[in-house]
Amino acid sequence: MTHAFQQTLISAKLNVNVETLHLTGEQVTPNCPIPWSVSKTRLHGGRSEGVDLITIDNGKLVMRIVATRGMNIVDVTTADTRLGWDSPVDEIVHPMFIQPHNRGGIGWLEGFNEYLVRCGLEWFGPPGDEARHHAKAEAPAGPLTLHGKVANIPASEVELIVEQTAPYRITLQGLVKERQLFGPKLDLSTQITLEPGKASFTVTDSIHNAGAQTEEFALLYHLNHGRPLLEKNAKFVGPVANVVAANDRALEEDGLASYDTFDAPRKGYAEQCYLLDLHADRRGKTMVMLHNAAKNRAVTLSWQKSQLPCFTIWKNTAAEADGYVTGLEPATGYPLPRQMERSARRIPKLRAGQSYETAIDFAIHDTPAAVKQAADRISKIQGNRKTHHETEPAT
Amino acid sequence: MTHAFQQTLISAKLNVNVETLHLTGEQVTPNCPIPWSVSKTRLHGGRSEGVDLITIDNGKLVMRIVATRGMNIVDVTTADTRLGWDSPVDEIVHPMFIQPHNRGGIGWLEGFNEYLVRCGLEWFGPPGDEARHHAKAEAPAGPLTLHGKVANIPASEVELIVEQTAPYRITLQGLVKERQLFGPKLDLSTQITLEPGKASFTVTDSIHNAGAQTEEFALLYHLNHGRPLLEKNAKFVGPVANVVAANDRALEEDGLASYDTFDAPRKGYAEQCYLLDLHADRRGKTMVMLHNAAKNRAVTLSWQKSQLPCFTIWKNTAAEADGYVTGLEPATGYPLPRQMERSARRIPKLRAGQSYETAIDFAIHDTPAAVKQAADRISKIQGNRKTHHETEPAT
Amino acid sequence: MTHAFQQTLISAKLNVNVETLHLTGEQVTPNCPIPWSVSKTRLHGGRSEGVDLITIDNGKLVMRIVATRGMNIVDVTTADTRLGWDSPVDEIVHPMFIQPHNRGGIGWLEGFNEYLVRCGLEWFGPPGDEARHHAKAEAPAGPLTLHGKVANIPASEVELIVEQTAPYRITLQGLVKERQLFGPKLDLSTQITLEPGKASFTVTDSIHNAGAQTEEFALLYHLNHGRPLLEKNAKFVGPVANVVAANDRALEEDGLASYDTFDAPRKGYAEQCYLLDLHADRRGKTMVMLHNAAKNRAVTLSWQKSQLPCFTIWKNTAAEADGYVTGLEPATGYPLPRQMERSARRIPKLRAGQSYETAIDFAIHDTPAAVKQAADRISKIQGNRKTHHETEPAT
Repeated sequence: MTHAFQQTLISAKLNVNVETLHLTGEQVTPNCPIPWSVSKTRLHGGRSEGVDLITIDNGKLVMRIVATRGMNIVDVTTADTRLGWDSPVDEIVHPMFIQPHNRGGIGWLEGFNEYLVRCGLEWFGPPGDEARHHAKAEAPAGPLTLHGKVANIPASEVELIVEQTAPYRITLQGLVKERQLFGPKLDLSTQITLEPGKASFTVTDSIHNAGAQTEEFALLYHLNHGRPLLEKNAKFVGPVANVVAANDRALEEDGLASYDTFDAPRKGYAEQCYLLDLHADRRGKTMVMLHNAAKNRAVTLSWQKSQLPCFTIWKNTAAEADGYVTGLEPATGYPLPRQMERSARRIPKLRAGQSYETAIDFAIHDTPAAVKQAADRISKIQGNRKTHHETEPAT
Repeated sequence: MTHAFQQTLISAKLNVNVETLHLTGEQVTPNCPIPWSVSKTRLHGGRSEGVDLITIDNGKLVMRIVATRGMNIVDVTTADTRLGWDSPVDEIVHPMFIQPHNRGGIGWLEGFNEYLVRCGLEWFGPPGDEARHHAKAEAPAGPLTLHGKVANIPASEVELIVEQTAPYRITLQGLVKERQLFGPKLDLSTQITLEPGKASFTVTDSIHNAGAQTEEFALLYHLNHGRPLLEKNAKFVGPVANVVAANDRALEEDGLASYDTFDAPRKGYAEQCYLLDLHADRRGKTMVMLHNAAKNRAVTLSWQKSQLPCFTIWKNTAAEADGYVTGLEPATGYPLPRQMERSARRIPKLRAGQSYETAIDFAIHDTPAAVKQAADRISKIQGNRKTHHETEPAT
Repeated sequence: MTHAFQQTLISAKLNVNVETLHLTGEQVTPNCPIPWSVSKTRLHGGRSEGVDLITIDNGKLVMRIVATRGMNIVDVTTADTRLGWDSPVDEIVHPMFIQPHNRGGIGWLEGFNEYLVRCGLEWFGPPGDEARHHAKAEAPAGPLTLHGKVANIPASEVELIVEQTAPYRITLQGLVKERQLFGPKLDLSTQITLEPGKASFTVTDSIHNAGAQTEEFALLYHLNHGRPLLEKNAKFVGPVANVVAANDRALEEDGLASYDTFDAPRKGYAEQCYLLDLHADRRGKTMVMLHNAAKNRAVTLSWQKSQLPCFTIWKNTAAEADGYVTGLEPATGYPLPRQMERSARRIPKLRAGQSYETAIDFAIHDTPAAVKQAADRISKIQGNRKTHHETEPAT
């Protein structure tokens, strides 16, 4: 990295927040044949007022990252595909307008509209009581609000790093601190890495326990897909060992048998959730895909299964105006009540000073051949191992 | 409107928030004989930091509108009258400092000080439980906090439109979005319209259901009057069909008999509320007035009764330092617990894509003759129809 | 004060917030032999975004005051001593990111990291229910959140005043308003006064009841000390009449006998609280000290006991990463549940328009002789009066 270009965008340490910036490949990597750019803007109007947005155009895709909301990825757009969805919340919402305790603890949804939303770092899942003391004589965390705090914490440090030799890798890194006295001190370091000209990127995260005591933590990637990948007869493809309906609702409408196939938008559709256990290959890697009906557009996600052992499909094929979306959710656990997750030993812990690493590779495919090739890779991971459908719901 | 002047003040869509602006009639409507101006400023200091305020001077009155607080009207001032009051909260409070869940759900009051405050859009009324699911399988709204959310949502779009031919009408329009996934998607479009030189204005609102499902909505105009209209022996005049005390307290001190007459400020005065059903004229229009003791200053409000069928008088003639104020409140319902309003079928609904329109005409009168004329108009609406006083309180 | 230099830094009244400023003694007091400066900056990055910080360097100490957080004092630093601590929350947190209702009402701790933090003005102490109506027919305050609101209210008015003749006293004054309709209207006026070249300062506060009714109020100075004053065998010295453990935990580990002696950081240490009644001298003044193990560094605090009759020692000698800190807390009462404080008649009241004054003198001592001299002064206050240790905990 000695020859890397570095630019601080935000730093609480240095008391810096560069309000607007526009950097181009021409300026930074004159020898790179593919034009790219990175820009930063401050948003204005409505509940977006004051939001810091970073846009990376790598010549093939355009990615928007919102520093003010925990380094979430708003969307990723290529010439004919988009990772993202059309939430009824159509502004990127500054955390100052979020009241997590609204509506019995689901106020988080008043700002929910990005493609990649991290849920955590202390907990994710539904609102509810949490009587457990996180450490001796310290206060219990509850009542928990939906999906935790990290999506509504602005990044303390944001830096752009560009390698000045091929492949001219572009990395945006951010640090988000979820800390308090008498509670967990969990820091998220994220690196979003792209190469000019490629329709792929990697999100590498590290959760660090900055406190002195062993702490529980939790991380779920709420990856939210709308059109054009999501449509009637779009399909989820994965090397599935086991699938269980999250609740009775997910068993309705032949839900368990058709959990991997998506419907057209439907007014009044109530969400269905499936909890999956995925197979991994010999190196521990797993991979899933969402492709459209024509099988000529897809996204694949791949990661080390040990890092994110649980996987949830959130089907919310409601009417377009209500939010037509499906969440593919690799995570450290399932989005069930925290007490249940604890009983099932799905809440990992970090010792003082310890970190937990995750990395997800995202790739966008836009030809039938590429989609077929991805399906073959997933099929190879599955091999001749069976998929078990549990007929009893999880809750 | 082809010849109208248009100026975007705030736009989330265009990523614009014009921090300061000063427009004059000289620049925009050189042929208009009456000087007028519109200016925009950003407020600083205390809990006002970052608030966007728009001031319209039409040559006869000065109106201040706060874009950051749902397009509420702070006050309207003429040479010798003011629509407004002196709240103990003497700064225009940015929503980022409001915690609606404070004090058992009345944190809204920490920012309450404007003349025209909209309560809604999903609900208004007292804090309390609300167990009803707003749509199949979606979360209940509760616990409800006082008077809903809209007063603490900044406008997404604000535009000034000035006709360039007589009467050179000045219109400020704003769009405020109260939306979330798994909850209502209600948008408020407001138009505040004035003519140069006139001591009157119209507020035309439209609530639009931007979601795909039928939704309940609620809209109450909390129109708050202090001095000089409110004083000892100031009077409410209206074509009243029925009046009921909201609760036992409103029956005290001969409350029901003197519900239309106001007292001097009194330390420790506890609020009294009266729920009115008004008569309308043959065209469906109703009209009320608040005039001072000398009957030489007044405000009249008139609207189609079908749009805002319920009317509440909120008497809070407390000591000046505690907030000496009366609210005249045209609304879609009464500010009673939501369950009670639902039982009484006073919660209207909007189908997907449907809108609900309201318009209130405000006029300030500053001569005995004008006050008399307004009283005559109201008397004509009443005709020889009786006013019924219900002796049992509503709750 | 006719010859005083005055500079408005923030004023909601004048709509002013000077974003950056740097004033020096050379400019303002050219005859003052000691160089001093006052500067103001706006913070950026993470949860500090938008915070207004004022730094006073009097030539001997550097003090940082955060206008956006109720005029709290972040820290005071001399050549070899610091009043302050290293909270795991390492950014000065803007109130817009604080959710006081988090974690069962201790969300206040997500922003807790300053040296001088005021708790109040309506209440301080633990979260909990509070059913009492603060005035006739008005809403109860509860549920209470930890330590009240004032630390998360930005100052409405901030002014710098510098005397232009010896001793060239520098005063920073601020006004913070904790107000709402149907609740208390309590204003804090603070004056922080320093002299160039002196390692001491005075904080003079006045709480004013701006409402029309008699109100309860509460004020606790959470003065938080970390290294270098706090260390193994650091000691609290005070003229103690009575000491009681706040609860059973404070009796553990021989707590009551060694309440005045501090431990090294210890992982998992649970906080211990001691409630003290101090003796005062004939003029009603009391004084306490915290000194390091070597007795060559100390801070002394002195005040009129009648103004702040209660004193709490908060021992939180946890691991450094979790927050190694002790709070010395002069206050109008003890940080016990509010109902208990009310029963014990430790909640003072202010009549309408009345004010309550407090003043604390802070002095930093950095030689063995100075520490000895301070100990002698305290010993003289104690005289031959005994210290009583109550063996039953308070709760």
